[in-house]
Amino acid sequence: GDISSQLHGGYSHPLTRSWQAERQLTKSMLIYPLFISDQVEEETLIPSLPNQHRRGINKLIPHLEPLVRKGLRSVILFGVPIAQNVKDTLGSAADDPQGPVIQSIRLLRARFPSLFIVADVCLCEYTSHGHCGILRDDGSLNNSLSVDRISDVAMAYAEAGAHCVAPSDMNDGRIRAIKLKLIEAGTAHKVVLMSYSAKFSGCLYGPFRDAAGSCPSFGDRKCYQLPPGGRGLARRAIHRDIQEGADIIMVKPASSYLDIISDAKDIGKDMPVAAYQVSGEFAMIHAAAAAGVFDIKTMAFESTEGILRAGATIVVSYFTPQFLDWLSS
Amino acid sequence: GDISSQLHGGYSHPLTRSWQAERQLTKSMLIYPLFISDQVEEETLIPSLPNQHRRGINKLIPHLEPLVRKGLRSVILFGVPIAQNVKDTLGSAADDPQGPVIQSIRLLRARFPSLFIVADVCLCEYTSHGHCGILRDDGSLNNSLSVDRISDVAMAYAEAGAHCVAPSDMNDGRIRAIKLKLIEAGTAHKVVLMSYSAKFSGCLYGPFRDAAGSCPSFGDRKCYQLPPGGRGLARRAIHRDIQEGADIIMVKPASSYLDIISDAKDIGKDMPVAAYQVSGEFAMIHAAAAAGVFDIKTMAFESTEGILRAGATIVVSYFTPQFLDWLSS
Amino acid sequence: GDISSQLHGGYSHPLTRSWQAERQLTKSMLIYPLFISDQVEEETLIPSLPNQHRRGINKLIPHLEPLVRKGLRSVILFGVPIAQNVKDTLGSAADDPQGPVIQSIRLLRARFPSLFIVADVCLCEYTSHGHCGILRDDGSLNNSLSVDRISDVAMAYAEAGAHCVAPSDMNDGRIRAIKLKLIEAGTAHKVVLMSYSAKFSGCLYGPFRDAAGSCPSFGDRKCYQLPPGGRGLARRAIHRDIQEGADIIMVKPASSYLDIISDAKDIGKDMPVAAYQVSGEFAMIHAAAAAGVFDIKTMAFESTEGILRAGATIVVSYFTPQFLDWLSS
Amino acid sequence: GDISSQLHGGYSHPLTRSWQAERQLTKSMLIYPLFISDQVEEETLIPSLPNQHRRGINKLIPHLEPLVRKGLRSVILFGVPIAQNVKDTLGSAADDPQGPVIQSIRLLRARFPSLFIVADVCLCEYTSHGHCGILRDDGSLNNSLSVDRISDVAMAYAEAGAHCVAPSDMNDGRIRAIKLKLIEAGTAHKVVLMSYSAKFSGCLYGPFRDAAGSCPSFGDRKCYQLPPGGRGLARRAIHRDIQEGADIIMVKPASSYLDIISDAKDIGKDMPVAAYQVSGEFAMIHAAAAAGVFDIKTMAFESTEGILRAGATIVVSYFTPQFLDWLSS
Amino acid sequence: GDISSQLHGGYSHPLTRSWQAERQLTKSMLIYPLFISDQVEEETLIPSLPNQHRRGINKLIPHLEPLVRKGLRSVILFGVPIAQNVKDTLGSAADDPQGPVIQSIRLLRARFPSLFIVADVCLCEYTSHGHCGILRDDGSLNNSLSVDRISDVAMAYAEAGAHCVAPSDMNDGRIRAIKLKLIEAGTAHKVVLMSYSAKFSGCLYGPFRDAAGSCPSFGDRKCYQLPPGGRGLARRAIHRDIQEGADIIMVKPASSYLDIISDAKDIGKDMPVAAYQVSGEFAMIHAAAAAGVFDIKTMAFESTEGILRAGATIVVSYFTPQFLDWLSS
Amino acid sequence: GDISSQLHGGYSHPLTRSWQAERQLTKSMLIYPLFISDQVEEETLIPSLPNQHRRGINKLIPHLEPLVRKGLRSVILFGVPIAQNVKDTLGSAADDPQGPVIQSIRLLRARFPSLFIVADVCLCEYTSHGHCGILRDDGSLNNSLSVDRISDVAMAYAEAGAHCVAPSDMNDGRIRAIKLKLIEAGTAHKVVLMSYSAKFSGCLYGPFRDAAGSCPSFGDRKCYQLPPGGRGLARRAIHRDIQEGADIIMVKPASSYLDIISDAKDIGKDMPVAAYQVSGEFAMIHAAAAAGVFDIKTMAFESTEGILRAGATIVVSYFTPQFLDWLSS
Ligand SMILES: [Zn+2]
Ligand SMILES: [Zn+2]
Ligand SMILES: [Zn+2]
Ligand SMILES: [Zn+2]
Ligand SMILES: [Zn+2]
Ligand SMILES: [Zn+2]
Repeated sequence: GDISSQLHGGYSHPLTRSWQAERQLTKSMLIYPLFISDQVEEETLIPSLPNQHRRGINKLIPHLEPLVRKGLRSVILFGVPIAQNVKDTLGSAADDPQGPVIQSIRLLRARFPSLFIVADVCLCEYTSHGHCGILRDDGSLNNSLSVDRISDVAMAYAEAGAHCVAPSDMNDGRIRAIKLKLIEAGTAHKVVLMSYSAKFSGCLYGPFRDAAGSCPSFGDRKCYQLPPGGRGLARRAIHRDIQEGADIIMVKPASSYLDIISDAKDIGKDMPVAAYQVSGEFAMIHAAAAAGVFDIKTMAFESTEGILRAGATIVVSYFTPQFLDWLSS
Repeated sequence: GDISSQLHGGYSHPLTRSWQAERQLTKSMLIYPLFISDQVEEETLIPSLPNQHRRGINKLIPHLEPLVRKGLRSVILFGVPIAQNVKDTLGSAADDPQGPVIQSIRLLRARFPSLFIVADVCLCEYTSHGHCGILRDDGSLNNSLSVDRISDVAMAYAEAGAHCVAPSDMNDGRIRAIKLKLIEAGTAHKVVLMSYSAKFSGCLYGPFRDAAGSCPSFGDRKCYQLPPGGRGLARRAIHRDIQEGADIIMVKPASSYLDIISDAKDIGKDMPVAAYQVSGEFAMIHAAAAAGVFDIKTMAFESTEGILRAGATIVVSYFTPQFLDWLSS
Repeated sequence: GDISSQLHGGYSHPLTRSWQAERQLTKSMLIYPLFISDQVEEETLIPSLPNQHRRGINKLIPHLEPLVRKGLRSVILFGVPIAQNVKDTLGSAADDPQGPVIQSIRLLRARFPSLFIVADVCLCEYTSHGHCGILRDDGSLNNSLSVDRISDVAMAYAEAGAHCVAPSDMNDGRIRAIKLKLIEAGTAHKVVLMSYSAKFSGCLYGPFRDAAGSCPSFGDRKCYQLPPGGRGLARRAIHRDIQEGADIIMVKPASSYLDIISDAKDIGKDMPVAAYQVSGEFAMIHAAAAAGVFDIKTMAFESTEGILRAGATIVVSYFTPQFLDWLSS
Repeated sequence: GDISSQLHGGYSHPLTRSWQAERQLTKSMLIYPLFISDQVEEETLIPSLPNQHRRGINKLIPHLEPLVRKGLRSVILFGVPIAQNVKDTLGSAADDPQGPVIQSIRLLRARFPSLFIVADVCLCEYTSHGHCGILRDDGSLNNSLSVDRISDVAMAYAEAGAHCVAPSDMNDGRIRAIKLKLIEAGTAHKVVLMSYSAKFSGCLYGPFRDAAGSCPSFGDRKCYQLPPGGRGLARRAIHRDIQEGADIIMVKPASSYLDIISDAKDIGKDMPVAAYQVSGEFAMIHAAAAAGVFDIKTMAFESTEGILRAGATIVVSYFTPQFLDWLSS
Repeated sequence: GDISSQLHGGYSHPLTRSWQAERQLTKSMLIYPLFISDQVEEETLIPSLPNQHRRGINKLIPHLEPLVRKGLRSVILFGVPIAQNVKDTLGSAADDPQGPVIQSIRLLRARFPSLFIVADVCLCEYTSHGHCGILRDDGSLNNSLSVDRISDVAMAYAEAGAHCVAPSDMNDGRIRAIKLKLIEAGTAHKVVLMSYSAKFSGCLYGPFRDAAGSCPSFGDRKCYQLPPGGRGLARRAIHRDIQEGADIIMVKPASSYLDIISDAKDIGKDMPVAAYQVSGEFAMIHAAAAAGVFDIKTMAFESTEGILRAGATIVVSYFTPQFLDWLSS
Repeated sequence: GDISSQLHGGYSHPLTRSWQAERQLTKSMLIYPLFISDQVEEETLIPSLPNQHRRGINKLIPHLEPLVRKGLRSVILFGVPIAQNVKDTLGSAADDPQGPVIQSIRLLRARFPSLFIVADVCLCEYTSHGHCGILRDDGSLNNSLSVDRISDVAMAYAEAGAHCVAPSDMNDGRIRAIKLKLIEAGTAHKVVLMSYSAKFSGCLYGPFRDAAGSCPSFGDRKCYQLPPGGRGLARRAIHRDIQEGADIIMVKPASSYLDIISDAKDIGKDMPVAAYQVSGEFAMIHAAAAAGVFDIKTMAFESTEGILRAGATIVVSYFTPQFLDWLSS
């Protein structure tokens, strides 16, 4: 009747407006991405990725200490091999015990006991061809060999002390492979397995590739990352990864795939759902703010709260350092 | 298969444990109940309701000022007429412009512009018989007269400046009546209508009745408050109140009716859901802590987070002053 | 079992990748927004809204003729009063028979018989205060007067020949009011009623306000446009507008609210669902492309196909002229 | 109320009528069936199947070249052995490397690099008894031997370069068998597995059997093709084939089983759904048009759009060459 | 697992095949359409509609008597005015007490007491313009006047003794109008109201229009009959007509809209669902059988059982006389 | 409409109030917890757990005899080793054939043939470290060894004659392990497997630990008992345990997790659902009654009926002896 027409009453006051949201952004929802160079003293601004740096291991603690004090709870690590000749067809450097990721895990666990450390698991930063697995002669991924290798790398990170391993490679069946190895190693109870289940290909990864040096030397990733229109594929991948033992499901990119986050929350309603606001999305906000389209802080909140509204309960965000300040005041 | 058996990985770390929860307690979720005496200088501890006082209007600002500074966002007001001869069969004092509720609303709006003021709407504190409406000769509620009267009282509070009116009387159809009057008065867009939709009778209201002086002089409230086993009635009442125009749905009591809060969230998934941890629940926690059953702060969090887990997004809580401290550190 | 793990086979070829999408972008899905100035010879580039102009009625046909030849099927009209003293508190100019919208409707119907003409219905471009309705003394919307006025304006546009009227004002109950007037006028069978049902407030409308000169002179629209986190409110508004007689449901903004588009498609699965990629979203893509984040054509497709993936079947897009070219080749 | 009665407004204009459809027919949705004779120079009109020919491999390129230029994206191949003595009880000719199907796959991949090639997989054209598998002594299908053989044939086509293998035989479990062999061969990531999941027996296959010479020499196919009333069986078969690894689900016939297509879309909402408008349906439309019941082009669109409306996203259609023209203008 | 793969066992025997169907065709499911001429002695074969005649009232009993003996349970009556000058803009002849429909109803009730008589209700056979209602000056339907007139005609047929009135006109709101008049007349309890709820426009009505002389003299019916792709509109119309008081829901055409019949059965699962195999579908089967595509009896069963499989429980069929024979043997 | 507003009629009479409840408390729903000391003559009041005793086997029969006479149907047994040096790292005493649990099972089966005997299965009372399994060097549970051990203990209790074994340990996969051993032993058909599926950590177990001497000597149980906010984890554990073969699902604690009981009933709607009102909940009620908050009998009923309302059909309750009296009168 008439009465159903009246909605304004529910959001006329700032407090009631906030009550209309399912969840509010808190510091513990944020994961901060770090690019770890194998040059121990490096600290280089990444031009295409505003305010983000590649840092060597010696620069890590000074950078993180103030952030941890402000409430930083979690980081995700990406290794960036800069040295000559370190890349090969198998991505051997990925689990080099002296490599930047494993060294960082050990260091951070020692220095920040309550910091939750996520290790991104992929080969593309370490392979000479830049693809996310081991290739066949025709240039396509050899799924079986890739899954073996990816799960070995994940185990190396877990053994080094990562609280969470997060395979971003999109080879079919890698969640099952990692989980089985974790069970066999007796660490499935304490290593969180976060799957990049719905990772879409597209034009939003440019700045990340600059940052991580992970651009394929030929071809693209359209045969393993999901096609942007492939909502059904995303749902099938999420279902599959839950069945294969994922503890957390991730959607990537985030702001451009809010419908998929919503699906992920529906399918994975009993688990945490993460979303990664990717480099292109982050850079786009910066470019638009610089062009005067909007105020950057307002948009950082609006876009991140949109991710929460869609259903995510964890956000991987380059805005993390700023949110630690903004959420304190 | 085997893999589905492994859940421990998802909650082995304090951060991942927190990620398993749908929502975290924040200050903006809390509404603090205040008992306002018509004796302007009164400040009396209520013996059965630990740490809670009846206060006259002159004591209100000093009491609230430090709380607002700590982040208090909302209060709910209950009037307590102490003066002789103020009660009658119609509860005329409920909307006395000089009465404690209307005077407090005006005062609080003036002094704390960002404080969100909820006015509980009922007659039982003001009727000579102590029932929540106007009675027929046989002692039962005259629903039609009661709804007229309750909606008049609600309008008086709204006109005095209450951001939200919250009828707790349980007369059938009072939400529709209030909404229609709000529409007619042109204030439906800015007055939030919060319905005590699922308010159960039972043995948990004793200390409140001491506080508010609202004990029925004969009979009980079992014919209008819901029977404790009446889950289906609760669901029907929630559906009805949403259709009649409620902006927020409340369940009361809270900790003892978590299944009903869960139902309220299912039915009202598109609206805020409030829950009132009632005096008996609050007093029970105090008594048990005093008896050494558990630590009171641990239990305050555990019981309140249980209310959130069940689906509430707003909690009316006597622990509010303490949470303002606990959530700051 | 093992077999469920293998998804790659379904998207290894460009054709099978396209088969994974529910729908493909076609020209008939696009609605092109036009800003019609009351200065008949005006043709001004809007600085903050790349490639978009304010045009007087004499510039309209030359601009549209080539587009119609390329397959333009539909436009949405926004009036922009530039003349002095044309604005007042009632937005009287909105349905001025000599005003730009009504004049354009008549002209376009005469010159492009197969073009489908949507008239945006609001008061904010025409009111002296810049709000989307008639105000009370306290500066808030008078819902009842506003609905009367909005529905009168909608009727004027319908009578002038608009195929579709699209109220963007967000006053409660305006869909019902317009539908009842259409029925009474005997035109409900041929005038499409498209509701901006889920229109969110936020920081993405800046360039539009520059274009349309519709910025509020005081306050903001947070009490009638939905709060960005208000997913439940959006669902309630969509349900309501369908019940009130909407023929098409719109979500606005689009790219930043894909989860809401998905909800709209669920709730309105038996009707067309439109989405408006707003000025801030459009400008953000341009700014980012200029900054080298991605190629603009690739992103125009990726973002628009994302809107389709989420569930929209109609897109209001500033990219329409370019899509007419891109989809032809 | 009254308002819900008004639907006409939503479809009074040709554009809004098109907006009421979930999807529009595009060229990329069409798969064109080709009958490939083992007589390399043959080009014979099939009398019962209007406009369709049996063609030898030397006639293939000249026939397809203009169609590819007009936008043909995909074909499905059926081998037709004409030579004497080529049929036996095992259908050995099905995967003869010199046979028409394998030769055509190689030729088409070489000449039309972007054409997507589907190979129908069955034995009935190649068996002396004309049944779709290997028989037991009692004339019934030996399911286990048949599945082995069918999956070998599928592998032979895949190895020859077919992008997609499509078993039409209806032996239980052949999807699993093919998928496992694809995984073992390391080609599951690039060979699409399309299952004729819901293939019904009935009287609509006559012209096809003329074309392919695949009529059983005794008995019928009612024990393996589904009974026309068996909607529940169809749903179970679709569920099963998805679980066994199908990438695409097919319903056959199409126009006469729109309810089954609707079920297939419900069950397989996350995958492409194909439908095959079979020879009898195609011939029936031609016969009726010739008898003056309707115009053939109008009916070709109406019947094909009906298949889309029911839920198919891919249509195997003998009308494909005509649609390439009709959709261009 | 493996076990789910084996379906053949369920349909290897003719009896188990029949068990797979939800329902079996019986005589009581059939409604036989009759064209009643106002020329009492006429008995003319309709060339485009095989085996169907226009008959005057004097030819009716001899034609029906043997059919009733064979088990005919129901007929649906269409009036065909042949006399000069009988048509006008209001379709006045539709409810002429001396007209063919009302006369036939009285006659059939008298002679075949157990025959269930459905009266199709429309104006198009009786209007000079051939449209299904009363027109506005612009040639479109005046919905309000049309509904008044249609409901008057329905009442006249009901009062003459029709067991069921079936409005086929598609004016919005006519079910409500008829139901209200039936209630007012005190006959709502014994007159069945069958709505042509989902009646689609398209190219399958040609032979019927020859039979009934109901071709529009200008324009078409696309603004009131549903567009062929409009599945959502069909669902909304079915929902609406159930709410407005329909006792039976009809889908028309039948064989070409099996997905809609399936929807109708879902939405109207608590009511009988009828489907009308229209003249074009019937003629198409005849033409194809004549061209040798299939045997006509086999196809008559296959197509009618397909309609049952999709969900219909009542079929309006020109095959009725033949089914009475076929189902007897 | 108005009519939906009237609910009071349904609960104005005590009988109709009782009709509003899904189920009523009966004696057969109750399981009574018993703490069995290894000191055969012991009978010690547990100070923190009102009215509950630790009893040696010689005190068991005299204690139970009057209760069985009053209608006691079931008990659950917890062993309490008091003797020196009986605890070790493997919890060897748990299945000592001379230990209190196995001895009690034999005795009770012999003396009370119709009493249903549940044996709680855990190691924490018997391990030197007080944790619920076998530990790794780092102090965390070795899930694989723990599951082996727990399932051996369960088998020992089953072989001794327990009707039901109820593992409370929360090691992943123990239900599967026990079920497989029961199947192998050929007793799966007569031994009920009740899983503590949703057992939450928290502050409500203090008095139980006093009673059973099962406090961990270091650390806590947060890595295997569920976090209080982990509703999704609880649902996943319930799903898993049902799939692994549980016959009954338990939620623990009860009164503080009514939302989880509701979920358990939803997920396990086809099975009995048990809930354990734990020691802290029981003690809290006693403390509050002693403080005058409410009458203890009223609250015992209200809290237990709340557990039934939420969905439990079995309640493990320390109030059992009193209910046997209260339900008799
Ligand atoms: Zn990678
Ligand atoms: Zn009251
Ligand atoms: Zn506006
Ligand atoms: Zn075959
Ligand atoms: Zn008609
Ligand atoms: Zn334990």
